Amino acid sequence: MKYTNMTLHTDKYQINMMYAHWLNGSDREKAVFEAYFRKLPFGNGFAVFAGLERFIHYVQHLKFDEEILQYLAAQEEGYDAGFLERLRTFRFTGRIWSMEEGAIVFANEPLVRVEANVFEAHLLETALLNFVNYQTLIATKAARIRLVAPDETLLEFGTRRAQEADAAVWGARASYIAGFDATSNLRAGMLFGIPTSGTHAHAWVQHHETELESFERFAKALPNQVTLLVDTYDTLRSGVPNAIKVAKRMEAAGNRMRAIRLDSGDLAYLSKQARRMLDEAGLDYVKIVASNDLDENIIMNLKAEGARIDSWGVGTQLITAADQPALGGVYKLVAREQNGKWEPVIKISANPEKVSTPGAKDVYRIVDRKSGRAKADYVALTGEEEVKAGEPIELFDPVHPYIHEMAEDYDAIPMLKPIFREGELIYELPDLDAMRELHRKQLGLFWPEHLRKLNPERYPVDLSVQAWQQKMDLIRKYKFK
Amino acid sequence: MKYTNMTLHTDKYQINMMYAHWLNGSDREKAVFEAYFRKLPFGNGFAVFAGLERFIHYVQHLKFDEEILQYLAAQEEGYDAGFLERLRTFRFTGRIWSMEEGAIVFANEPLVRVEANVFEAHLLETALLNFVNYQTLIATKAARIRLVAPDETLLEFGTRRAQEADAAVWGARASYIAGFDATSNLRAGMLFGIPTSGTHAHAWVQHHETELESFERFAKALPNQVTLLVDTYDTLRSGVPNAIKVAKRMEAAGNRMRAIRLDSGDLAYLSKQARRMLDEAGLDYVKIVASNDLDENIIMNLKAEGARIDSWGVGTQLITAADQPALGGVYKLVAREQNGKWEPVIKISANPEKVSTPGAKDVYRIVDRKSGRAKADYVALTGEEEVKAGEPIELFDPVHPYIHEMAEDYDAIPMLKPIFREGELIYELPDLDAMRELHRKQLGLFWPEHLRKLNPERYPVDLSVQAWQQKMDLIRKYKFK
Repeated sequence: MKYTNMTLHTDKYQINMMYAHWLNGSDREKAVFEAYFRKLPFGNGFAVFAGLERFIHYVQHLKFDEEILQYLAAQEEGYDAGFLERLRTFRFTGRIWSMEEGAIVFANEPLVRVEANVFEAHLLETALLNFVNYQTLIATKAARIRLVAPDETLLEFGTRRAQEADAAVWGARASYIAGFDATSNLRAGMLFGIPTSGTHAHAWVQHHETELESFERFAKALPNQVTLLVDTYDTLRSGVPNAIKVAKRMEAAGNRMRAIRLDSGDLAYLSKQARRMLDEAGLDYVKIVASNDLDENIIMNLKAEGARIDSWGVGTQLITAADQPALGGVYKLVAREQNGKWEPVIKISANPEKVSTPGAKDVYRIVDRKSGRAKADYVALTGEEEVKAGEPIELFDPVHPYIHEMAEDYDAIPMLKPIFREGELIYELPDLDAMRELHRKQLGLFWPEHLRKLNPERYPVDLSVQAWQQKMDLIRKYKFK
Repeated sequence: MKYTNMTLHTDKYQINMMYAHWLNGSDREKAVFEAYFRKLPFGNGFAVFAGLERFIHYVQHLKFDEEILQYLAAQEEGYDAGFLERLRTFRFTGRIWSMEEGAIVFANEPLVRVEANVFEAHLLETALLNFVNYQTLIATKAARIRLVAPDETLLEFGTRRAQEADAAVWGARASYIAGFDATSNLRAGMLFGIPTSGTHAHAWVQHHETELESFERFAKALPNQVTLLVDTYDTLRSGVPNAIKVAKRMEAAGNRMRAIRLDSGDLAYLSKQARRMLDEAGLDYVKIVASNDLDENIIMNLKAEGARIDSWGVGTQLITAADQPALGGVYKLVAREQNGKWEPVIKISANPEKVSTPGAKDVYRIVDRKSGRAKADYVALTGEEEVKAGEPIELFDPVHPYIHEMAEDYDAIPMLKPIFREGELIYELPDLDAMRELHRKQLGLFWPEHLRKLNPERYPVDLSVQAWQQKMDLIRKYKFK
């Protein structure tokens, strides 16, 4: 079993379309595809883009090696040997633009744009969507949790419930980009440089004659890192009193216990009682960590109840985005080259929200100069110059086309950055801390009303008049053909 | 970045507990851990075990290489150099028993039992749970879908919405074990030998001047594999009529179109209309494939409405187990060696369902000889002989302890198979087709009432009287200590 070559991390239909293009001689025709999603997850007002690093790595390492070619040759499709030879020398030679990881993004705006010959462009779809859908989903979930716990320590503890190994490490990374402080997954720590955190399991306590003995031995081993899990037998009658005894003995030796951890029962009640007991023992510096199926709603409610929790360990609900475990990102053809000219294309659908917006497009964040806040995202055809020049533009709401608004005194931030040019990587991937900083700065551009967890005000994603008009023209063309 | 060594696919607390054991000299004490879940997913009556192959691979390839040791040495825990030297030569030397992949399993029975020194046993927890939780969840979801569509072709189409790359391939494999026929993911096909399937995207149609031209070109490339996607512009007015034209021309050339695919709109209505149109054109052999956010409930409803669909492409809902995206499997210490004797241990909890069952245990499926059907699973301490000898046993329901029943004329199938013995793999992993066969046979052991999708009859998982009594004794010991 060869697990490392990711080239075939794709749907079979991509290879079949590549084959049909090759056989029909259309494989070198150019095309533009855009990746976007149609609906924000969790009823949230925004999403946090992630997945670019993983996608870049995929594009750079595409290689149909001998093992893959043999596998394809054995398929019942009966691919022509010439096609397999073409694959043998395959490499990506096109251009890619993308949102940056950590960026605040919205529905119905291009997140990634691929301009390449159609042969290459098809191959990228599945992996791109797989990486970006998941990582964006988890970064968005993490951002929601960070918003309800702005001052506490947030720990990603989800590996055992993650949907297999990649989800654990890439989910840990996405959470960190969106403001988490650490992960329990050591491989994620090693691969990406994310701080790691861990306490001990119930099994540590169970393995010893008494809880007190187990606490003492753990404290002896890790005098600077002691967080004791206090709910193995009885939190308030056994766990916390034993932790206090150990903390006082540590004090006598010049050490400080870091924290206790609550992992079951009524976290509001237990944390308040534990805090009182710790404080009465003069241990106000010992923090309280809580875990047990937490999410942003439970955390908000526990805080409203006055829970005394300094640090939240969030597992299942974050790492699987349990209330909506998939982001429905899609990758659609928006233009193709015909006789040396770009021609916009559309997909009509019986489901109106699935009708695509034709033409290669850029995204600009329109920031009002007076307030310094983002007013709308403006999706324009790549050739449009007005917005680049800062000229007055009409903000045209494609959902409510009777709503128009002008923007005049604004800064337009181009959101899609060039990543590949003629197959060469031209983007310098920031380190994770720079992504976290970018994310924090972007949050600062928005009014709180767009960011709040429940019923956020809808942030407008507007089309340029040209983009809108072109879409209408193409719909008409297909409907009356 | 080194992605291949999975040794650190673990939570930091495992390493910290290993360190504390090492430092306290208790690292070579033996322990027994058991993995199980407390609640069946999706309100289903059973689960389908999967994840063993992946776990075996993990155990066999554990290696703390130089890069990992350097990473650990730099942690703020300040691990002693002797500990890192111990890790350098780490390998698993213990014993493991497990359910087989494809087996029908239930809540509160051990799925995997690890007997090893506590140092080794801790390390395995996180990866074991990560693999088994996800793969068992997806196999169970797939089995639910197979139950509502016993005679149709089932295709796993979820990669783009899967939670990262591992979920796509291991989820495809889990689905195949539980009765799916093929996957769209080529890497899963190549790694595991699963049949692969694919049609074409809307982009294929959009890239051509007309839909008809696009269909003709696709048919030319793949004359034996043609499935045409008919909803790019208008399913019944454009897509199906064009597909019929192409199918007739293929007939003239001695070929047969395989199928058309519906991917949006009212699948019940469209499939009935399309079936009629195909039949009227003499194309009764052309099948209809449907996709678009399907799950077992939608499929059952479409079938009840008389939809004419031969093949279901299932994506998001299957690959993410969207209605319950995590299985809450846990790994608990149940016994430890003390002065050469095994001593059962318990975890008490403020949440009653979290109280563990002490002692190393085996699972027997009690099959009634008269009916040939499974009557209950019987969880007994490993030393108990009655059930092995086929003597009368008392089936004791731990949820309703006032319900007792005797089993006399039965066969007892031992469900946990030996996998590792003193660190050596002693289990021959069946190929996937054998796992599918095992799964089908196991299904046949159960009454339909235990298998049905909605409100299944609860299948009993009973404790032996000894196991129950030992649990009661230990609870009493801790409560009155």
